[in-house]
Amino acid sequence: MEISPAELSLKDTYKLLTGAVVPRPIAWVSTVNKEGQPNLAPFSFFNGVCSKPPTVLFCPGVRGTDGDNKDTLNNVRATEEFVINIVTEDTADAMNLTATELPSSVNEFEYAGVTPIPSQRVKPPRVAESPINIECKLSNIVQIGDGGKGSGFIVIGEVLHIHVADKVLLPNYKIDMAALNPIGRLAGPRYTQVNEIFELFREPSQVDQD
Amino acid sequence: MEISPAELSLKDTYKLLTGAVVPRPIAWVSTVNKEGQPNLAPFSFFNGVCSKPPTVLFCPGVRGTDGDNKDTLNNVRATEEFVINIVTEDTADAMNLTATELPSSVNEFEYAGVTPIPSQRVKPPRVAESPINIECKLSNIVQIGDGGKGSGFIVIGEVLHIHVADKVLLPNYKIDMAALNPIGRLAGPRYTQVNEIFELFREPSQVDQD
Repeated sequence: MEISPAELSLKDTYKLLTGAVVPRPIAWVSTVNKEGQPNLAPFSFFNGVCSKPPTVLFCPGVRGTDGDNKDTLNNVRATEEFVINIVTEDTADAMNLTATELPSSVNEFEYAGVTPIPSQRVKPPRVAESPINIECKLSNIVQIGDGGKGSGFIVIGEVLHIHVADKVLLPNYKIDMAALNPIGRLAGPRYTQVNEIFELFREPSQVDQD
Repeated sequence: MEISPAELSLKDTYKLLTGAVVPRPIAWVSTVNKEGQPNLAPFSFFNGVCSKPPTVLFCPGVRGTDGDNKDTLNNVRATEEFVINIVTEDTADAMNLTATELPSSVNEFEYAGVTPIPSQRVKPPRVAESPINIECKLSNIVQIGDGGKGSGFIVIGEVLHIHVADKVLLPNYKIDMAALNPIGRLAGPRYTQVNEIFELFREPSQVDQD
């Protein structure tokens, strides 16, 4: 089938994008507003960028219900800091609770029953139940679209500090996938486990892979 | 363990980022240079951005071996077009072959034994063996870092056209994950299958998820 996105509704475009770009990692992003009120929300338009400076990005969209900006974006703009907490199968249900659009006054840590603990370099608390927390300072925000419904923002951050639970860390800064037990985002209500792992090796003369 | 990336080697930073930000979708990006010579290479720092305009991004790093820019980046700069081909288990080995750093003169379609077929809106050919091809025009390139080793580029593109094989398309623009059979990128030589799928529903009062 040949599809021209210009002829699709926003909803169908989103459905197609989230069905085709899979599986996506999940950034469970904690932020605070100017008054220190914490927020926690998941974003699967999320990825690494590069190593020097160590950089990640995530893309909060404009809220579907009311066309407002998400609290996460407002908080990052106000404080220029955020923490990315990695979502595992153990925290999947709590993460899903924080995906609902709640009033700004709601503390999602309390709502989802997860534990905020202090970060080392930034003000937003991190999620104690996440085995990896990535503390970031804002580098740049790139707006895509006119700011109305369907628009998005690329929030680019420099990694200042990483907490890795000993149980998921292997020698030489490798992460133990079985111990981490991450989940990946698909479309609609669907997620994937990351248990069926295989390896593809490149020629030995090529870049060292591990 | 507490890790300050400032104290890590580039290699260890990359290892940690690619181990923590998982599972990652894979953009198998086809481009052409000014003379029309095609290139094909995979990038797992890849994701969607938003629906209006329909936008995706991927992040080519500076080449590890020689500190040069990748052919993909050079071609996108020169022609402002690219196609993202979705990688499935069937095309995993071919994709892996195109991950090697080959001279610019090598046609990776031939090297990996995949079939270039014409795109509809852009000059780079698409991969016939990929059940989803996303034709894009360049919106913007954001450089991160000083351009030396470890630096990266965020290549942001607007989706002009999408080809979806009938066998992976369900009604209402949903993608059939079992039929698509995508793979996700982990760290080092590792990849994950996307077969163990589960669902998490939000409250019915919340945003329609499907």
